[in-house]
Amino acid sequence: MNEIPKPSVPAPDIIRCAAMDLVVTDLAASRAFYVDVLGLHVTEEDDEAIYLRSFEEFIHHNLVLRKGPVAAVAAFAYRVRTPEDVDAAEAYYQELGCRTERRRDGFQKGFGDSVRVEDPLGFPYEFFHATEHAERLHQRYDLISAGELVRLDHFNQVTPDVPRGRKYLEDLGFRVTEDIQDDQGVTYAAWMHRKGTVHDTALTGGNGPRMHHIAFSTHEKHNIIQICDKLGALRMSDHIERGPGRHGVSNAFYLYITDPDGHRVEIYTQDYWTGDPDNPVITWDVHDNQRRDWWGNPVVPSWYTEASPVLDLDGNVVEVVERTDSSEMEVTIGADGFSYTREGDDDGTYRGQASKGFKIGNQL
Amino acid sequence: MNEIPKPSVPAPDIIRCAAMDLVVTDLAASRAFYVDVLGLHVTEEDDEAIYLRSFEEFIHHNLVLRKGPVAAVAAFAYRVRTPEDVDAAEAYYQELGCRTERRRDGFQKGFGDSVRVEDPLGFPYEFFHATEHAERLHQRYDLISAGELVRLDHFNQVTPDVPRGRKYLEDLGFRVTEDIQDDQGVTYAAWMHRKGTVHDTALTGGNGPRMHHIAFSTHEKHNIIQICDKLGALRMSDHIERGPGRHGVSNAFYLYITDPDGHRVEIYTQDYWTGDPDNPVITWDVHDNQRRDWWGNPVVPSWYTEASPVLDLDGNVVEVVERTDSSEMEVTIGADGFSYTREGDDDGTYRGQASKGFKIGNQL
Amino acid sequence: MNEIPKPSVPAPDIIRCAAMDLVVTDLAASRAFYVDVLGLHVTEEDDEAIYLRSFEEFIHHNLVLRKGPVAAVAAFAYRVRTPEDVDAAEAYYQELGCRTERRRDGFQKGFGDSVRVEDPLGFPYEFFHATEHAERLHQRYDLISAGELVRLDHFNQVTPDVPRGRKYLEDLGFRVTEDIQDDQGVTYAAWMHRKGTVHDTALTGGNGPRMHHIAFSTHEKHNIIQICDKLGALRMSDHIERGPGRHGVSNAFYLYITDPDGHRVEIYTQDYWTGDPDNPVITWDVHDNQRRDWWGNPVVPSWYTEASPVLDLDGNVVEVVERTDSSEMEVTIGADGFSYTREGDDDGTYRGQASKGFKIGNQL
Amino acid sequence: MNEIPKPSVPAPDIIRCAAMDLVVTDLAASRAFYVDVLGLHVTEEDDEAIYLRSFEEFIHHNLVLRKGPVAAVAAFAYRVRTPEDVDAAEAYYQELGCRTERRRDGFQKGFGDSVRVEDPLGFPYEFFHATEHAERLHQRYDLISAGELVRLDHFNQVTPDVPRGRKYLEDLGFRVTEDIQDDQGVTYAAWMHRKGTVHDTALTGGNGPRMHHIAFSTHEKHNIIQICDKLGALRMSDHIERGPGRHGVSNAFYLYITDPDGHRVEIYTQDYWTGDPDNPVITWDVHDNQRRDWWGNPVVPSWYTEASPVLDLDGNVVEVVERTDSSEMEVTIGADGFSYTREGDDDGTYRGQASKGFKIGNQL
Repeated sequence: MNEIPKPSVPAPDIIRCAAMDLVVTDLAASRAFYVDVLGLHVTEEDDEAIYLRSFEEFIHHNLVLRKGPVAAVAAFAYRVRTPEDVDAAEAYYQELGCRTERRRDGFQKGFGDSVRVEDPLGFPYEFFHATEHAERLHQRYDLISAGELVRLDHFNQVTPDVPRGRKYLEDLGFRVTEDIQDDQGVTYAAWMHRKGTVHDTALTGGNGPRMHHIAFSTHEKHNIIQICDKLGALRMSDHIERGPGRHGVSNAFYLYITDPDGHRVEIYTQDYWTGDPDNPVITWDVHDNQRRDWWGNPVVPSWYTEASPVLDLDGNVVEVVERTDSSEMEVTIGADGFSYTREGDDDGTYRGQASKGFKIGNQL
Repeated sequence: MNEIPKPSVPAPDIIRCAAMDLVVTDLAASRAFYVDVLGLHVTEEDDEAIYLRSFEEFIHHNLVLRKGPVAAVAAFAYRVRTPEDVDAAEAYYQELGCRTERRRDGFQKGFGDSVRVEDPLGFPYEFFHATEHAERLHQRYDLISAGELVRLDHFNQVTPDVPRGRKYLEDLGFRVTEDIQDDQGVTYAAWMHRKGTVHDTALTGGNGPRMHHIAFSTHEKHNIIQICDKLGALRMSDHIERGPGRHGVSNAFYLYITDPDGHRVEIYTQDYWTGDPDNPVITWDVHDNQRRDWWGNPVVPSWYTEASPVLDLDGNVVEVVERTDSSEMEVTIGADGFSYTREGDDDGTYRGQASKGFKIGNQL
Repeated sequence: MNEIPKPSVPAPDIIRCAAMDLVVTDLAASRAFYVDVLGLHVTEEDDEAIYLRSFEEFIHHNLVLRKGPVAAVAAFAYRVRTPEDVDAAEAYYQELGCRTERRRDGFQKGFGDSVRVEDPLGFPYEFFHATEHAERLHQRYDLISAGELVRLDHFNQVTPDVPRGRKYLEDLGFRVTEDIQDDQGVTYAAWMHRKGTVHDTALTGGNGPRMHHIAFSTHEKHNIIQICDKLGALRMSDHIERGPGRHGVSNAFYLYITDPDGHRVEIYTQDYWTGDPDNPVITWDVHDNQRRDWWGNPVVPSWYTEASPVLDLDGNVVEVVERTDSSEMEVTIGADGFSYTREGDDDGTYRGQASKGFKIGNQL
Repeated sequence: MNEIPKPSVPAPDIIRCAAMDLVVTDLAASRAFYVDVLGLHVTEEDDEAIYLRSFEEFIHHNLVLRKGPVAAVAAFAYRVRTPEDVDAAEAYYQELGCRTERRRDGFQKGFGDSVRVEDPLGFPYEFFHATEHAERLHQRYDLISAGELVRLDHFNQVTPDVPRGRKYLEDLGFRVTEDIQDDQGVTYAAWMHRKGTVHDTALTGGNGPRMHHIAFSTHEKHNIIQICDKLGALRMSDHIERGPGRHGVSNAFYLYITDPDGHRVEIYTQDYWTGDPDNPVITWDVHDNQRRDWWGNPVVPSWYTEASPVLDLDGNVVEVVERTDSSEMEVTIGADGFSYTREGDDDGTYRGQASKGFKIGNQL
């Protein structure tokens, strides 16, 4: 695909990923998952939508569950530094030729003046500054759970052409911290940030646009273990898709679970500071078996293949474009794939299997 | 097989599992693993053997690495309460018709008067009381590592007929805490203790006698995560066989790794008190996908199939007898196997696969 | 005082400390503390009493809060191994000349045949075997709190003559693991066990008989930190009497808090195995500033002086006998007291002060 | 004192606090403390200086120990975003009338073009951009210690007039996150940041300029507990000045220790995100007994009184100016001081004492 040009107008100053507008098909079932199981805090709710925030959050919400016919993402919302940055965002995307919509009273309850765009990769991005303040619960140890989600950490987006998307996001002001490549010049994934962590969003190569996951942080690793334990106690262990484990990329301790609609949520903790301009960028070899799980545990096939649709500004599912670059799954655990524990060492190499005695199962 | 009779003489009073006499083929490589990687403490060593103990141990050692031609277990050593209990053990096994050998100066440096037996299941058991005391390092926080192994917790033995072995161990004074059965009357595994934890040893149904694993405890779960992280940093992640995870059986947080010879070591923490005589025994359904990993993560096939040989009193490998009862691997992840997340619920059931998108790979 | 003789009849086989019968003056206020704040689980309750158990417990309860006019301890209850051990306990104490009372239906709801005694030190001890079983919540991660109390660990009793009490408890079958002495032959405190941990009870030298504290365990140290954090969030930080910290004696991580009546509760984790007959006994020098808090943090004066009354079999407060041996508080933080960080090193020595810039305040 | 004017030239863009240039009197003793005890990593060293960095750091160092006659701070170094920001810093301070010195090759080995200033409060501030890169050890789990210091978090400076210093730092671009005041208009302390945490530096009211402490972060709370445990094991518990505990201000889990010269080091973890422009500022009442320690544990008097000298650009100790505003120690634990657990509630109020039975000891 052609490169996305860099507008002449300045990019908006994005502080951080702030909220996801998530369409769910059964509001009660989703509420049970996100509130009763995961413990996110309700700022407000009605029959159509539930506004949830994390333990240390003070803006109105980090996640809105909105009832709808198709489980999809309506918006990836970023907070910008000033009210003028909302204008800047609108101008920026208009120069890119993207469809935009401006609402002075916001798209999401609790947020003010916002602009939504159908971005060059097909994703519904939203930029806002004004927000109602909610009580910051950071010292409400009387409310804290053993698996408390303390912050929204990042988004992860599936897109067919990672370098094309990366260039566009870098122009927008995101700085890349890590990526996965091979020696053929193919980029499989990239991570980029605004707030000084490993990422505010990431691009995972695949058929897109689709939402790969939304991620919340915990304070410590045992909090993530507790989430797994609780899902076990509730006989919901089939919601644990992958992990827990230690990431190679980002070095964070992680877990991936699926909500009632199959939307993927990551629980994440303890990555590292990236806020210096010369932060060392780390490139991983796609065949390195420790890149996604530092311990070499298999990446379950669904993790590579499944993702959530995204909506356009009319609320219709955006048609997905197929990836033409190599598939990470194929080159690592496909029949002709391989991954190594130690580069150049044939022992500890997994050929055509997920590692540790497993091949891809029958879900594909 | 025929039931093992209960001797008329009293059983020795066994306090706890105390040490394993482990034959390794490359002493330097094993030292690098157990001392440099796992951080066990050297009580003493020479060219033939290395005596290692855990952080809180005061007896001479919990593990001796002994150089030999075949990687195998020479003895599972239990500490008995009094010197007279060594006599009792000798008489007990002699009445069982087992071969025994008594050494007043012990079989293992640092231990005194001991008796070794070829037990009815073919395992080399050892019973001792007298031991040299080593410095108890329990407050040596200047020496502690981030992944410190603080105690020896248990052994795990593979044997073809679990109920037969269970009866013999119960006669010996072990109390069963948990087991895995099906509705056909087959027992797949059982756990039994002396010291008030979930187990001092366990019987895993399979071809035996073989040693399934030896297990050490840590104080907290993050210590086990650190062991995985360190193996990653050393590019030894292929030594991580299974986990980390939460067990259904025992409720402990666990990890299984393999040493340079392929001997399996478990790292384990936070099971529960079993010392009351009416401790509730827990029976798990073999088809329950949360029995071995509470989070439903797959049990890698090698975990079911691989185990270490054991030696007889002449130092020869004991011939293995095949299990004729159903195979846990076959009935759960074999082509005709199945396991469920919620009993009676077809959704969340894994048929013929290890769960979560995987089938058995090509190691078999 | 005269030595307490050893009876000719055998001692009952005590498994572990099992429950405390605690009289509280305001049942609702105590319920709010033990259930709402500390998260103990209600087995059953009525207008007069609340039966609470810890997360991993299966016997009926570990603590009964019983409404009464004077906040005191009605009984320290130990579980014995067999029904016959209740007979043995009765005979043992009768031979000691103690007042005993036998109730076939028990003194505490949920427990069966029990005997209560006014022991030689003036404490109301209770021995029972039969108990109703409650649901063991050990895998109820859907109910677990961030500061979950998982087991009852020990009692601690104040008595004027520690060696006299120690000898009596050793005759009863308790094994001493640690103590505090000086070079004048004075014993200030001793810890003794049945269940293979550092203690099931302990004797703290002082005016007695009084109950110093009851202790519950957590799985990990962060659980104890959470209890402190929660008390802060509830603006109840004045219930934190001492700690959190690391003990020298026992090596456990600890916290002492006070309930609405001023009864002291300890939260405790990660001591060490003591079940071997030759478990190394550790004696600490009373002047060692790291004996009670390994980090040298001050022992608050109330910890030395305050304790709960105990009741006799008529429900009357037992008159307290004054200690004549040296006072630990006086010899360490009294005007002529001292304690050292490094023995023999004058630097790092605290004279007449609690250490780190503090002297005893005005509560005395 | 008169207000410090805001320069007309732009402030340098400060990314974060980056390094402290610390003069120590005994290099070997300090090396033993910072490297052997605390585990900081040596980037390089010679007979005059040792350059240390934290586990996740990639710039040359976070702390240089420099041998000198007087234990003092030679510089508080901040990293600026671009080379031009070094020019900007120089111009900014020159307009303030401060003495400045520019060194193209830097003042500290491993850093490039830098400017040092004697700031309006008398502190030696340094601004640099260029730095050599060191290996980022963030995944070196083979090197990690149980008490690993993973990042430099902040500085803390003692100055007599907090509002005056605050205004100057706000002009410089720092944003205040929390402070401590009373109802008389006195500000006792303030915390301010650049990098999106609670602070990069803070002003503690007192006689100054002096350095109160430098702080390093750990990943988890148990890492801080381990540092205390290790100091205990080394019989160095008298280096633990205050804590561990939970802060009210910042909500972080903390510990204060003293190095061989008496320089104070804080170990700190898990504060919260402050990077939004409308981050809610929190003001604490100086009489709130949970402001400094959320658990109401006493603030040891030395914490209020002791601090390290700072040097001017000639290397001479800067003369200290006495604070004339109220003293936090006096108004809380002085003879006429008081602090409360619950505002307006006389119970749980500490009058003239440090709380929990202690008064100020004899160190003053």
